Amino acid sequence: MTSSIEPFFKAKGVAILGASTNPKKLSYGVVENLITYGFTGGIYPVNPNANELLGLKVYPQLAEVPDPVDLAVVVLPSNLILDMLEACGQRGIKAVVIITGGFKEVGESGARLEEEAMKIARHYGMRIIGPNCVGTMDMNTGVNTTFIKGMPVPGPIGFISQSGAICGGVVDLIIDTHIGFSHFASLGNEMDVNETDVMEYMEHDPNVKVIAMYIEGITNGPRFLEAARRISRKKPIVFLKAGRNDAGAKAVSSHTGSLAGSYAAYQAALAQAGVIEVDTIAELFAIAWALGTQQSPARRNVALATNAGGAAALAADSIDKNGFKLASIPVEVQKNLRTKLNPAAQVSNPVDMLGSVSPDDYRWSLSNLAEAETVDVLVPILVPQALVDTKGVAQAWIDISKSTNKTLLTCLMGQHSTSEAVRMLNENGVPVYVYPDQVGPVLKAFQVFKDVQERDEFREVTCPVKPRTLLDDLQLSKGQRLAFGEFETREVLEAYAIANVPGGMAKSNGEALKIADEVGYPVVIKIVAESILHKSDAGGIRLNIQNAEKLRIDYDELISHIEMNNPGVKINGVMVEKMAEKGQEVIVGMRRDATFGPMILFGMGGTLVELVKDVNLKAVPLSEADIDDLINQTMAGKLLKGFRGSLPADIEAVKDVIRKLSCLSLQNPSIQEIEINPLIVYQAGKGVVSLDSRMILSL
Amino acid sequence: MTSSIEPFFKAKGVAILGASTNPKKLSYGVVENLITYGFTGGIYPVNPNANELLGLKVYPQLAEVPDPVDLAVVVLPSNLILDMLEACGQRGIKAVVIITGGFKEVGESGARLEEEAMKIARHYGMRIIGPNCVGTMDMNTGVNTTFIKGMPVPGPIGFISQSGAICGGVVDLIIDTHIGFSHFASLGNEMDVNETDVMEYMEHDPNVKVIAMYIEGITNGPRFLEAARRISRKKPIVFLKAGRNDAGAKAVSSHTGSLAGSYAAYQAALAQAGVIEVDTIAELFAIAWALGTQQSPARRNVALATNAGGAAALAADSIDKNGFKLASIPVEVQKNLRTKLNPAAQVSNPVDMLGSVSPDDYRWSLSNLAEAETVDVLVPILVPQALVDTKGVAQAWIDISKSTNKTLLTCLMGQHSTSEAVRMLNENGVPVYVYPDQVGPVLKAFQVFKDVQERDEFREVTCPVKPRTLLDDLQLSKGQRLAFGEFETREVLEAYAIANVPGGMAKSNGEALKIADEVGYPVVIKIVAESILHKSDAGGIRLNIQNAEKLRIDYDELISHIEMNNPGVKINGVMVEKMAEKGQEVIVGMRRDATFGPMILFGMGGTLVELVKDVNLKAVPLSEADIDDLINQTMAGKLLKGFRGSLPADIEAVKDVIRKLSCLSLQNPSIQEIEINPLIVYQAGKGVVSLDSRMILSL
Repeated sequence: MTSSIEPFFKAKGVAILGASTNPKKLSYGVVENLITYGFTGGIYPVNPNANELLGLKVYPQLAEVPDPVDLAVVVLPSNLILDMLEACGQRGIKAVVIITGGFKEVGESGARLEEEAMKIARHYGMRIIGPNCVGTMDMNTGVNTTFIKGMPVPGPIGFISQSGAICGGVVDLIIDTHIGFSHFASLGNEMDVNETDVMEYMEHDPNVKVIAMYIEGITNGPRFLEAARRISRKKPIVFLKAGRNDAGAKAVSSHTGSLAGSYAAYQAALAQAGVIEVDTIAELFAIAWALGTQQSPARRNVALATNAGGAAALAADSIDKNGFKLASIPVEVQKNLRTKLNPAAQVSNPVDMLGSVSPDDYRWSLSNLAEAETVDVLVPILVPQALVDTKGVAQAWIDISKSTNKTLLTCLMGQHSTSEAVRMLNENGVPVYVYPDQVGPVLKAFQVFKDVQERDEFREVTCPVKPRTLLDDLQLSKGQRLAFGEFETREVLEAYAIANVPGGMAKSNGEALKIADEVGYPVVIKIVAESILHKSDAGGIRLNIQNAEKLRIDYDELISHIEMNNPGVKINGVMVEKMAEKGQEVIVGMRRDATFGPMILFGMGGTLVELVKDVNLKAVPLSEADIDDLINQTMAGKLLKGFRGSLPADIEAVKDVIRKLSCLSLQNPSIQEIEINPLIVYQAGKGVVSLDSRMILSL
Repeated sequence: MTSSIEPFFKAKGVAILGASTNPKKLSYGVVENLITYGFTGGIYPVNPNANELLGLKVYPQLAEVPDPVDLAVVVLPSNLILDMLEACGQRGIKAVVIITGGFKEVGESGARLEEEAMKIARHYGMRIIGPNCVGTMDMNTGVNTTFIKGMPVPGPIGFISQSGAICGGVVDLIIDTHIGFSHFASLGNEMDVNETDVMEYMEHDPNVKVIAMYIEGITNGPRFLEAARRISRKKPIVFLKAGRNDAGAKAVSSHTGSLAGSYAAYQAALAQAGVIEVDTIAELFAIAWALGTQQSPARRNVALATNAGGAAALAADSIDKNGFKLASIPVEVQKNLRTKLNPAAQVSNPVDMLGSVSPDDYRWSLSNLAEAETVDVLVPILVPQALVDTKGVAQAWIDISKSTNKTLLTCLMGQHSTSEAVRMLNENGVPVYVYPDQVGPVLKAFQVFKDVQERDEFREVTCPVKPRTLLDDLQLSKGQRLAFGEFETREVLEAYAIANVPGGMAKSNGEALKIADEVGYPVVIKIVAESILHKSDAGGIRLNIQNAEKLRIDYDELISHIEMNNPGVKINGVMVEKMAEKGQEVIVGMRRDATFGPMILFGMGGTLVELVKDVNLKAVPLSEADIDDLINQTMAGKLLKGFRGSLPADIEAVKDVIRKLSCLSLQNPSIQEIEINPLIVYQAGKGVVSLDSRMILSL
């Protein structure tokens, strides 16, 4: 099957609508780029007011453009866009890049224009990239619909960007270093084609070895995750999220929300899907370039070969911080190194050949280290010096890369004297970094990719049939209220067979006594009043009531205390519950993220929850491995396993609750958030029980 | 007073011992650098086998060198060094740079050579930099004793490095960007002059505005801290620690040690002394350059002015992550911006002037933003584009920097097309970064410097007279044993009036009953046996024994349980202690760090201590502010203050224990480590009590 995205990168003929003869116009730049960078198909500028442009015939209208033409680039004001799309449709063009701005990003009228445009696109079965973007590049076909000056050399990185300017900046940044790319895709407003569409196209293009993404917001979280989960096992996906704080600052309505803002959801979901998240633009390409050119290390043992101890120390720190370690060099290898290196050289790891090193020193040390079974990664480092032949050293590293299958990452710690050597190394697929500390995060990314490849294939936890039309039965969503306390939430949990502590709501002292008789003493009583959210802060809880006499007194005291301190309060009743035995307190809950949909959260519960910030998140659907990770990545999870001699707790029962909340989230879209805190976890085999819970519904 | 370090940077005449006429020799490079970079004093190559070098007269021996000569640079094999130093001494030279290697770094014989050399140096009152270094530079006097190719332009950064190669690398990195330095000091083996000597020299050199340090190990921690604490209030000290993991991996003997390795001590001590610690070489100079050229922001409000939304998003993330925020732009300023910018521009923060921005757009927006009271920091960002005049934009930024006293940090996100603009900006003292995400850490560093300047002056906590010759009385250090449990440690704590839970050691069932009668039931019993370190893991503790009958049984059961499970165990006795009332559990302790000496630790206690990793450290001597920080920076400290409605705990009593441990550490150098875990903290006014403790003595 041919992808509908293909013409954006492998067009046979490109029409440029609104191609200007003025070199200061963007459209002129597009035509120039198509001519300059080796595109061999037809280039058809369209402009009723010109005859010739850069030696090309200019067509007065699109209808007159000859075959083959399968891609149109539009650089015309937004008010002409609908006519232009109509013309594209009639000419049979199925792919359009709209570079022009003035759409959704300027407000309501622009958004309406996009809707109209999409109607035309759907009518003709056209795909659209943009508007408000800088277009696309394919370094192998020469298709270049951008006006960016310069085009990267062909290479392994497929780059998807939601910012056009970042694309321009990246070209300026890397063009002299000869880091290679397969594609650039600037997606602009994503009126039609979005980041997942292009990612799925890159999945099947053999020129793409690694996908690098600059993303401000994922369009459809669940669809992205499903695709990423599949693709990340074949091709690493390296991902930079911009606009973290905006998302994070978005007001969230409940306690749970404050622990798990939207960027936290991104971090959790990306990790779950096997995507390698990075912090900076520099890291995005440092990592993508290595993943695209080098193979993953077999294990985590790194050999450093350097002419500068300080630089090696910085590399070692970074390696250690990222979970790799310095390889131990076998004695016979050390002896062999010694035979040809400077007598003052250090032949254990880091191998330090001292300042005035020669290319042959590197050749000797690296070829010996490459042979050592204990070495998985080679990291040669050179700090340029007056008497050192930097280009010769680079050539030695390139030669080594051709004779070994071990992972090779290199460092030239300089700028002024290193540009040519950098170009040589990158052209030969040997990643070279300016700073020794860049090596660690790159190695960590290799490890993530390896771990993802070794994962079991994703299998969604299955849900039993939905228990019943829960919310209708409960008649909760009919009123104005959206936030519900324990009383109502208990019913939802019960419907999913999640154990609540035995108890019920009493409207009178007598009812309280009756409930206490049923559940048995000692009991706990809690006020139920809509206006009182934090019961314990309000003095609305009495613990450990031992008998009926005490209950009678405490009940009355509780009511009068609440009424006195909260004038006009409307008390709905009092929850009377069996005092639960002690166990480990965890928090388990679900909240819907605006991007990724339902997320399950788990962590340390009770009052420590806010202090310790031990909350982990996973997006639904979950696999069993996701559930294990959700628990094991927290302190709470470590405690459950039996910490410092305490007995292991009932982790199976916790997993059961997580599975049920995940099913609940899929079966009840109007439950916006639900939270159990604390869930008491008893010893293995003894189960769990919810001591308090609440939920929020959506309108 | 003239510093003895001064000749290394302000020499009037420099003799180069071992100056070769071979351009491939390092000594040739030194002479060439002295000639090339504007040094106006005497340059005297010394070499018995040459007459002339680079147009200079060569002297057969040092004795013949004319006045003035106050600095010698030695580039001769190590076996000649003693004679050379003798010659320097006799010629009256008080400052010597030894570039040659072959000393301490090659082993025992080299270390002995250094000792001999120091004898001569002390005899003549000479100061020595090196050996095994690349020498010194002063960008204002032209003194350049290195063989590094290139010399930075004069500027505010005084750079101290324990790696010579890093110095060379840094010159190569920054030479084209025109980042300015006042000094380079490569210190090599630090036989004599160390990093603190040079830091204190830079304290008084008005050309130094900021001190940047690359350090593998501080020579004398307490002396460094004392100096840094003073200097950091006047000139920011930016510090990169290399070799973190080596230090961290150093085996430490006790539980406490594993929580507080040496790098943790560095981090704690540096923060305490007001030093700005950075993670990478790139950050070291990004931050030093800004601190050296720009003034600190008045508050934390940042205005971004950009031609690229994506780049601004990355900057905003970094600003937010580092404790600064986007300024709100007053409506009238927004209106004014609107009058001259592109109608599609965004005039709230970030001000986005769209891709094809002009220098005048920046001039207009920045001058308006600079006037706004709500703005403290200006961050203009440009992603270069084909039709944008990058140099013109740089000039606009420079013009703004001259007309405002607000902090200005700029970003040119490119490489290929930006080098000239970068040079222009840096030459005018306007820091420019390649990546928008570099801005946040720079702002954070400004804030640290500001906070340090606003601190109260350091006043050490005073200690009462040492209680008695503790260890002699206890006769602890006389045996072979170094690790002691609660029984012995209680006495040390008692001597310092730190409350132990009431109790004593019983050697028999009868003694146990007697102690229990004294302290009152319920009691706790704990096994005392040297071979049993983790009493609770070994089943060596019985809690909550209510009466004599129960105690009798539990005592016997404890003994037989331990004997059965630990064949051949030597039981010293059983601690019988009053069962303490519940309170908050914290850990308080002291350990001696190899570099910084005694450090006090504090954090969450009990069994959670290892899981939560809530341990904070401070180096002794402490101020009251240090003690507050020690407590307040932890979760345990937050809990003590009264978290989520619980009552505040007796923080004053905790501080008292900390003061006492700090005095104990100063008064008993042979106590290597001491730890109270848990220390139970009761409600405010009710005190603290040690429930368990241990210590380690040094030989």
